[in-house]
Order: sequence, then structure tokens, then C-alpha cells
Amino acid sequence: MTEKTIFAELDPMFHPGSLAVIGASGKPGKIGRVLMDRLLETGFQKLYPVNPGESEILGIKAYRSILEIPDAVDMAIVLTPTDSALAAVTECAEKGVKTIVITTSGFGEAGEKGKAVQQEMVRVARAGGARVIGPNCVGIYCPASRLPYLLGAGTAPGSVGVVSQSGFFADYLTLTATGNGIRFSKAISCGNESDLTATDFLEYLGEDPETETIVAYLEGTADGRRFYHVAKEASRKKPIILWKGGLTETGARAAISHTGALAGSGRIWEGALRQAGIVTVASFEEALDCLYAFHLQPLPRGKRIGIISGPGGAAVGTTDRCFQLGLEVPQFSQDTIEKLRKAMPPVGGSINNPIDLSLASMVSPRICKDALIIAAEDENIDMLLVISVVGGELLRDLMLEALAEMRDKKPFVVTVMAGRTQSVAQDLGLLLASGISAYPDASRAAKALARLSEYARIRESRPAVEGERIATKDTMRGANRLDVIETALKQGRTTLSEHESKEILRAYGIPVTREEEIFDERRLGESLARIGFPLVIKASGPSVSHKTEQGLVHTGIRNEHEAVTAFRSIMNRAEKEGLSVLVQEMVEGRRELVVGLTRDAQFGPCVMFGLGGIFTEVLQDIAFRVAPIERTDALEMLGEIKARKILEAFRGMPAAEIDRLADIVTKVSRIGIEQPAIKEIDINPVILSQRGPVAVDALIVLNR
Amino acid sequence: MTEKTIFAELDPMFHPGSLAVIGASGKPGKIGRVLMDRLLETGFQKLYPVNPGESEILGIKAYRSILEIPDAVDMAIVLTPTDSALAAVTECAEKGVKTIVITTSGFGEAGEKGKAVQQEMVRVARAGGARVIGPNCVGIYCPASRLPYLLGAGTAPGSVGVVSQSGFFADYLTLTATGNGIRFSKAISCGNESDLTATDFLEYLGEDPETETIVAYLEGTADGRRFYHVAKEASRKKPIILWKGGLTETGARAAISHTGALAGSGRIWEGALRQAGIVTVASFEEALDCLYAFHLQPLPRGKRIGIISGPGGAAVGTTDRCFQLGLEVPQFSQDTIEKLRKAMPPVGGSINNPIDLSLASMVSPRICKDALIIAAEDENIDMLLVISVVGGELLRDLMLEALAEMRDKKPFVVTVMAGRTQSVAQDLGLLLASGISAYPDASRAAKALARLSEYARIRESRPAVEGERIATKDTMRGANRLDVIETALKQGRTTLSEHESKEILRAYGIPVTREEEIFDERRLGESLARIGFPLVIKASGPSVSHKTEQGLVHTGIRNEHEAVTAFRSIMNRAEKEGLSVLVQEMVEGRRELVVGLTRDAQFGPCVMFGLGGIFTEVLQDIAFRVAPIERTDALEMLGEIKARKILEAFRGMPAAEIDRLADIVTKVSRIGIEQPAIKEIDINPVILSQRGPVAVDALIVLNR
Repeated sequence: MTEKTIFAELDPMFHPGSLAVIGASGKPGKIGRVLMDRLLETGFQKLYPVNPGESEILGIKAYRSILEIPDAVDMAIVLTPTDSALAAVTECAEKGVKTIVITTSGFGEAGEKGKAVQQEMVRVARAGGARVIGPNCVGIYCPASRLPYLLGAGTAPGSVGVVSQSGFFADYLTLTATGNGIRFSKAISCGNESDLTATDFLEYLGEDPETETIVAYLEGTADGRRFYHVAKEASRKKPIILWKGGLTETGARAAISHTGALAGSGRIWEGALRQAGIVTVASFEEALDCLYAFHLQPLPRGKRIGIISGPGGAAVGTTDRCFQLGLEVPQFSQDTIEKLRKAMPPVGGSINNPIDLSLASMVSPRICKDALIIAAEDENIDMLLVISVVGGELLRDLMLEALAEMRDKKPFVVTVMAGRTQSVAQDLGLLLASGISAYPDASRAAKALARLSEYARIRESRPAVEGERIATKDTMRGANRLDVIETALKQGRTTLSEHESKEILRAYGIPVTREEEIFDERRLGESLARIGFPLVIKASGPSVSHKTEQGLVHTGIRNEHEAVTAFRSIMNRAEKEGLSVLVQEMVEGRRELVVGLTRDAQFGPCVMFGLGGIFTEVLQDIAFRVAPIERTDALEMLGEIKARKILEAFRGMPAAEIDRLADIVTKVSRIGIEQPAIKEIDINPVILSQRGPVAVDALIVLNR
Repeated sequence: MTEKTIFAELDPMFHPGSLAVIGASGKPGKIGRVLMDRLLETGFQKLYPVNPGESEILGIKAYRSILEIPDAVDMAIVLTPTDSALAAVTECAEKGVKTIVITTSGFGEAGEKGKAVQQEMVRVARAGGARVIGPNCVGIYCPASRLPYLLGAGTAPGSVGVVSQSGFFADYLTLTATGNGIRFSKAISCGNESDLTATDFLEYLGEDPETETIVAYLEGTADGRRFYHVAKEASRKKPIILWKGGLTETGARAAISHTGALAGSGRIWEGALRQAGIVTVASFEEALDCLYAFHLQPLPRGKRIGIISGPGGAAVGTTDRCFQLGLEVPQFSQDTIEKLRKAMPPVGGSINNPIDLSLASMVSPRICKDALIIAAEDENIDMLLVISVVGGELLRDLMLEALAEMRDKKPFVVTVMAGRTQSVAQDLGLLLASGISAYPDASRAAKALARLSEYARIRESRPAVEGERIATKDTMRGANRLDVIETALKQGRTTLSEHESKEILRAYGIPVTREEEIFDERRLGESLARIGFPLVIKASGPSVSHKTEQGLVHTGIRNEHEAVTAFRSIMNRAEKEGLSVLVQEMVEGRRELVVGLTRDAQFGPCVMFGLGGIFTEVLQDIAFRVAPIERTDALEMLGEIKARKILEAFRGMPAAEIDRLADIVTKVSRIGIEQPAIKEIDINPVILSQRGPVAVDALIVLNR
């Protein structure tokens, strides 16, 4: 399914001219009754209840079978028990229904037998020209078409789109947000994805001109790579707020390289979501918090926040929180301070950022609005957070005035800490319904703004373009890489030796150690002369791993005598076939990094960067991205690890050559794209040396 | 002020027999009117409004001055303008008032002039036998005494105590929680703490038999060490939920050692709060979330959670969150699974942990309660989280039934995701008022339970005892430490050489490198023989720092020739006075840690443990504690760093000898207590070697 056709293919589903409800009921407590109630609430017109035991349901003529309906049926919603769903779908297909929504559960999620029935339903449906949504879902909500959910049934259309693998999430989110004045274009619960998937609908919503903001709930996907591409494309045009469930599941992956082992535990998902520009959230509440900021506010131009607080304590605590979230709380300009001084009564608190209006804001609520307007005009400020001790219509009106008066449109959000007028929940609803982003806690408000500014930064750095740009355009140097791979495969090997692995890296222009592989002590002397002391002597060979732990690495060799001793110690010690010795330059540098490649079952080739050396696995301070990556991705990976400060100058060491480091990561990503025979790469350590970053040890694993 | 007397001294303040309001007003919008309104609401009896311009306020006889009141006045609340506050306080003192609450602001927080007036007010008050609360505060809320706040005025007493440096926090928290059925013993806003401090009131609440749970907001304290002791003592008996504002402020500290430099940025505060067993929160909402769990639920016996969810998506996402929070989501016992199977209708979801009731819980809400009771009886489960899709009185009644039926009392919390009945806020209020901990989001519910289980663990490990136990009882070995210190001080030095520093460590039984200090090349031979190759030769001397960066450390010396070269290179290179050379055993080990001591302006001697070597400062993976520490504190520090896995066995290295490592940290803490002349200690690195942890380099700084 290509970008160009998915909108054309899926859009009619959201606008069915007629609808059959198979399993409709008039009996209270039945799911068939709940849906009929909602359809009557929204006033869907051409509605055909189907129930073999009823001739009329809630005043509407009912049919024993869909086949008895005299008119054409565009969409059928199947609510029947599990056992009779296949029969219902078969009749739908016979009737020529275009979209079949199967709400019934007990199929793919219930085991092998259910999975087989599910597949058969899809086969039958598609053979009849129908597409299937579900089973085990709540289906489609489309206010403009008067298609309701089980809980939510608002009919005023808006521009928030929802796609969810959890029916409840989609239904409850639309219900809750509608209660706060947010309006939706479409919401889709795609259940078991037997035919149409969350990725299909994400692509559709990305293309849909009626959708400006997307909220999604996802637990997994069969094709992570397609999901990634679709999400990346869509997020260039509109924000995607995603709750990913199941991030902590640890797939039992058998991996030889450390990169492969580290890829579990959701770390690749994390990287892919970030790379796609998705706004990830970790709870239902956070999804709503983000929605209220992203849907109602313009994007900020930076991360400098102005805080206007009634309570002094909240001003202090919120400033803490903003710092923790990576926002800046700059001083106001002198001009702003003077304007504030003129406009404010002498307050107990502070008139610099954060503005602490203290008790004055209770006595004269208008000063809160005045301070907001003045602060918004400050060039040093990109967005604003108001903490108000008054609520109700007074606050709503003040904020609407501020919105109207603000010359320079900057995002601002409001936290309500007003107790005695009415409930905070009502205050928030009042503000949200007027298009003002509102929160019950300043910490959540600050977080929503931080997310908004982060998304703005990503949007800025990734303009919306057609198709995917691949930065690695320069042609390859060297060509013997395939020889190395083919030789290994011919020998039935899937692990390359350190020296072979580095041959491939070198062919791609990645700086590696100067080294020579020797099998014979008689060649040692020449090698020593060419490499020069001090040097390293280590074992090499396809079956050598954990060399240091096994005592197979001798560093700091300073003369021929030491070299011979080391050579013999290695050659005597190991009985392994194909063992050789590497005479290697000694790369000096105390900072060790790791760069790696793995092929993920869902995302395909993925590249890793992180803290290297012996700490790679225990600290797991790493970042993943889906290959191919662009330079900006590589730079983001470098900045994402917790130990990123080791790339700066410290303790007499110069700053790392960021460009060359990013180049290595980008080139490894390119190997992943161009060399399908390579399954995993570990370059550990990459040492930051005086001549730049150098791959000191490397391991490449091939596909069998 | 000792523990025994503070309760007796402060308790009468909360029960004044008579009250004068200086600056009382009948005019709407005036703060004096707001307080009078509240006092009339609560019905405080012996109330004397004071206002020079009024003879009657809101129907009560008013006085021109407090001196005109015919009866004795126990408490006076001063609401006058800043300029007339001192006069009011002077009259209060003359009148013999016992407690003066100064609400007025514009004193210590407003600059030097205000500070002087503030000091004068306290002087006058105390001279007259009065104690002062404030200025710049909201004062005391005590429902049992009918003392109200400006916002909150509930008169039903309970057992939550509040102490806050932010008046608004105290006032708004009591108002909000009272709305949800929580009742308070006392709340104190202590403002500028001109006389009585937050620590005084924390100590009082810790002793107060009417207070079972404490909530606090604190920005700073003049005596961190006393605060720490008071909080530690109180938290052994009752939970203290604390929002610490201003944690990100970075004091411009001039420190020579790395430990000293790392002590800024609130890291010592973090360590002290943890060590005191305080439950720290980072927002107003989190404070309430914790209060609702800590005040209403029993302590769990472990960290194993059972999850009963209506929505399947929420079950998945909440399980993720629980893992992230360090909770366990174990499988149920076979017995539980069979009981669940019998009690539940065939559900679409799962009957193992997390239980996913799916749509069934909407159709038959009772199964949610049944599942809760069954899961609570499972021996593998310590606490429970229910996510309900129904709300209202139905949910309230079901949960009350569950509470009554539960044989084994375990904490359980409820998340309400029910949309169509009434607002979630109302649902939550209904549950909370019945003593059921309730949250609008499962992620917050899980976090509150995680905090509860963490506090239970700390309480378990620190039984309530009188006074502080000091673990380091064994007497000192060696006695020449003082010589070293005295010699240095006599020479006008405040920095000890590496060798001198290690002498002190050795005297305290901390394992250090075998080494000899030599000044003369002629002594080198003997030293080499005694230490044995391979060894390290490095510069030593009081003014030597950053030795490695300066090329003053030669490791891996394998023969006399190398030793002589190294010796000369050091001696030639530096012109510094008192320079010597250390011949030191070479300690092998790839894991480097840091142990340190600093004297904090607020907390006194504090000990540090963390990741050592060159990464100490860039990674800042460290933990602080206030000295003296006990063994459990040292073990907690070891377990607190992010890199704690390097203490386990990995990559051929054995697990660290935890006991010996903890012993080093404990001994450094003891040096801090016993040697007041020592200002800072840096032991970096402590290397995990084959013979255990060894202090390889050390720096001790003395107080001038």
C-alpha cells in the first residue's frame, strides 16, 4: 500500500452511507444495546439492526440476517458471540459490505484456534471485496459521519485523530477529551489487526487533511520498519503523541554481539520512536496532558520559559522542575522588568523570572494577566506558564483577554490552584473549552511545554520532504570486503576475526588501528618494525572472544623481547584452529566508546552508539537508531547518552571530534544497508585518541 | 531545644484560649476580612478584632489597640501593613500575648532593612515572653481549636500534620485534601522563621500523638544537620512526605577536592533526605498522591504488586510502569489462578497478573471486587492496584465490601477510568472520603504504592530507637595521624601529600597501597626491592594535583632502568618545593571507585561514594550521606549509584567485596566525626583488586 493510495482507499470507510449492527439488542446490559443507544444519540440515519430473534429494536425495524436488508450496506459492525462471527462475516461478504468491523473477541488473542478462525474471516471478507477492522476492537469513531464509540458519542467534528490497539484507550480518551471541549476527526480501535493495522491508519491520519494532531496507543507491530517510516513521515507534518505499551518486555533473544544483546528491553523501540519524531508518553494522563498543549498551542521558537506564579512556593518548585526538564528560565530583559515594575503593585515576591505575585494575585487577579502580556513580549521568552490562585469564569476571561492582546503569539499554559470557587476539574474544563491549555499541577504543565518545545526543535531540524533522505551518498572505497565475507561463509563461519572485521570497516572509511596479522614467529620482527613500539599483541581468530578476560591481550609491549614472550604465550596457550596473532599499534586514550549494528526482527538494521570498554553492558549507556541514519541522527545519538560529557574537554583531554565520531556511526549504518550478509557489528572500544576516534577492536557476525 | 521539651513548649500554641486579630477588617477584598470570615465560619469563641478605625467588625466588638482588650490574649495574628507591624508586636509583648503570628510580609525576604526590623520584632516579642511565627506566613491551622487558614476552614480534626515554608502550599494542601475527606491535626506555615522554624515544628509534629502522617514543604534551612536528625527520628515513627523546593540551585562553592565540588547541586540534600527516611516528592500533586496512600493504607510487606484492570491497554502500560518503578509483578499461585477461573466469567483478557477483565468488568462490575479479594489472598502479593471502568457509589460500595472482606490486610489503591456516570474528580472524592486511596491515572497510583513499599522497607531496616546509633565503635589503630596534621598546619599547609593522606587512612584501618616516599635517588634501589615489580612511580607532595594529567605518574615500571628514568623525569620536571617520589605497588583492577568526605555548610561532615577514576566528575554517579553513617547507610550508598552493577561479577571479574567496601565508606565517615581539622577527603581511585578494595590515590585537605 503506497502513500498515495492509502488515503483514497481508507477514507470512504469513515463515511459509510448505511450501517448494519449484527448482534444489535434492546436488552439493557448487552453490548448490542449500548451501541444502539449511542447510534440513536448521534442520529445515524441508514441504520439496520440485525438480530435473528427480533423484528424491531428500540423502535427501528430489525432484520434476521444482513442478507434480508433490502438496501446496500456500506459498513457492518459484528457484535455476535465468538462462535457465530465467521458466519456473520460470510454473510457480510455475500451482501457486498465494504467495511466489516468485528468487535467480538476470542480470536487471535485467545490462541491458535482463534487465530485460524480470524484468518478465515479475513480471507472470506477480502474475497468478497471487504476490508476488516478488528476483531477484538471498538472500531471507528467519526463524529462527522455520526459514527459513535461505546462510551463516547460526540457529534461535533474536530481535528484530533486517534489510532489505538486498545479499544478502551481510544474510547475513553475521546470521551474524556470531548468533555473538555476537544473535538475529533476520526478515532480507530484496530484490535487484533487481522487485516488493517495501526500503521495503516497512522498513515491515513498522517495524510488526512482533517487531522492536525494524532494520539496513538500501540503495544507492538508486525512490521516495525514500515511503522517507523510512516510515523517519521507523518510527524514531519503533525505531532504524534504515542503511548507505547510493553516497552519493558524482554524478548529472549539469542545474540552473539553485545550490540545484539543490548537491543532487547525496548531500547530499539525507544530509539526508533525518537528518530521518527514521535512524542512518547507513559500514561493515559500524560497523553491527555500533551494533547492539550500540542493541539491548542503554537510551536515555541526555543526552550526559554517565563513563569508567572501566584504562590511563591509553586514558583520555586516549578523552576526546579523546568531545569530538570531541560528548559531555561532566563532573566527578563531590563525593559520587561521596568514594565512589570510599573504595572504591578509592590508585591511581596519577585518581579523577575519566575514572577512571584504572592498574595497580590488573590486580591487583584488582573495583575496575573498583565504580567503574562508583559512577559510574553520579552524577546528572551519563548513560552509561558501561569499559575493562578483564582479560577472560574474570571480566570477564563482574563486568559482569553491575554490571548487576544498578545501581539507575538507564543504558547502559554495555565495551572489552576484555586480552591474555594468551584472544583479545579471544572476550572480546567472551562479553560480548555475556550482553547486555553490548562493543568491542575504546574509540574505537568511544565512537562507538556517541555515536550512541545522538544517537538518544535525536531520539526525544525527535519523539514517535511517527500521520501527519505539518505545521507551516505559517497561511493565505497576498497572492494575486498565481499571477499572476506564470502571466504568466511564458504568456510562455514559466521564470525569474522578482529582483523577481518576491521578490513570491512576500513573499506568503508572507518579509522581502524594499524595492525598486521601473523601466524609465524619468524614474521614477527618485520611486523614490529613496521608498527613501532609501544604496541599491542593480541590473539585473533574467528572463534576468539573476550580476549582480555582470557589473558589474550598484551598491551604496552616496549621491545622485541616482550613481543616474543607475548607471541609465544598466545600461541602456546590456545589450541584453537585458525588462531593468529595481531601486532597492533597502541592507541592511547582514556575514553572508550562503542558503535554497533544489529538486525532487529521488527526494525531491520539498527545502529548503536554508547559508552564503551568494560562498562558497555553494566552501564548500558547507549542509544539506538534505525538504519539508515542521517548526520543529525548520529549527532542526536552522541548527545543522548548520559555520559555525553566525556565527549567534551575535561581533565586535560581535548573535546572529541564530534564530526568524525558521527561519521563512524553513519558509516556503520550504511554497512547495515549495503551488506545484508552482515548480521551484527560490535566496535568496542572506539578510543578517542590524539589522531581522532579509532576502532581498536571489532567483531562482525554474519547471517547463516 | 531538646526532644522532651519541644512538645510541651509548642503544644499550647495550637490551643489558644483567646485570639486577637490585629488588622481585622470588615471590608471585602481585605486580607483582614478574609481571615475574619474564616474565624466566623469555624466559630472561634474568644475573638478580639483590633483595628484603630473600627468599633465593630462583622458584628463583633473591635478594639483600637490590643492593649484595650480587657481579657488575657493567648495568641495575636498581625495583619497590619509592614510599617506598623513592629508597633503591633511591641503592644502584643506589652499585653503578655504568648504567641504572635505575623502574617505581614516585607521583612527578611525583602532585604537588609526588613531583616533588621524582623530581628527587632523577635527581640521585643521574646523579651515579653512571646514566641513568634512568621513573618510572611499564614500561621497555624488547628481544626480542633477552630483556628482556620485563609483558604481552608474545616473544623473536623484528623491526624495529618503539615509544616511549610510556603504559606500557600500549607493552605491549599489542607483545603484540597479536606475536600477529599482527609482531616488534619495541625498545619503550620512558618514563613521567614524569624523565631520558630520548620525544623522546630517538624520535631513537634514528630512527637505529637495526634499526628500520624506529616506533609512538608521546605526550601532551605539554617541548620541542615539538626533538620536531618529531627526528620530521621520522626520518620522512624511516622511518614514525612516532603517537597523540597530549590534543589537545583547551585551554590557557588569553592572546593579543592572533587568530593567538595560534587557536593553542590542539591546532591547532599538528596542524600540526607534519603538517609533520614523522608518520602520526597517533586510537585504539589505528587504530595497529595503520596498523602492519599500513606495516610489511608497499611504498609506493605514487600514490593510485589497485583494488578486488576478493566481496560487491557491500561493493564499493559501499568505493568510497564510498575517495572520501571522497581516493583515486581509476579505470577499468581496456582491456587489463586484456579479460584479466579471459577469466579470469573470467561473473559477476553488474562486471569494471571495483571488480570485483564476486559469488557466483562463493564457488564459485571462485581467481578472486579471478587478478583481483588482473591488476588489479595495470594501469598506472592504484597499490595494491589485496581483499575476500574465503573465509578460512582457502585465502585465505592464494592471497594468498601472488599476492604471489609479482606482477611489479610494489604494496601490497595484504585484508579478510576469511568467516564459516563459523573466526573472522575467526584468519583475520586467519593472513594477517598471512605478511606479508599484513589487516583485518576494508574501510573500515579503505581508510583504512590512504590513509594509506600520503599518507605516500608526503610522503616523495617531502621527500627525506632532513642538517639542515634553510631556503628563505628572500635578504637583507632595508630596514633601518628595527628602528627601529620599538626606538622602540615605548622608549616602553614592545608593540603596533605598523597603519602600523608594515606597515613591517616591507614591509621583508620583503610587498606592503602604499599608505598615508600623517597627524596633521594640513592634510596631508590632499596625501595624497589621492598615494593617489587611491576610498580608505580609517581610524584608526591602537598602541592601536586592532577598528577596523571601532568605526566607525573609512571605505571607498569618493570625494572630498575625504567624506575630510574621515571624518578629523574619527575624530579627534573617539577620545581615545586617539598616534591618527593612515591614508589608504590601496582594495584591491578579495572574497576575504579571514589570515596570522599566534605564538610557542608548546612549538614556538616558528609561522606560520598561513587564511580571513580577519570569519570567521577563527568558522570557524577555518586551518593552522599550525612556522617556518621551506619553500615546500612553505606550499603544503601553502594546500591544507589547507577553503575552499581560493576560491583557484581562480570566479564571475568569477581563480585566486589561489599563488606570491605562499605567498611571503607564507614571509616571515612568516622574520620569526618573524629578529625575536625580535616575539611575534605578524596580517595580516587579505590581500585577493586584481587586482594579487595584498595585506596590507590588520596588527597586530604585541612581546615585553615
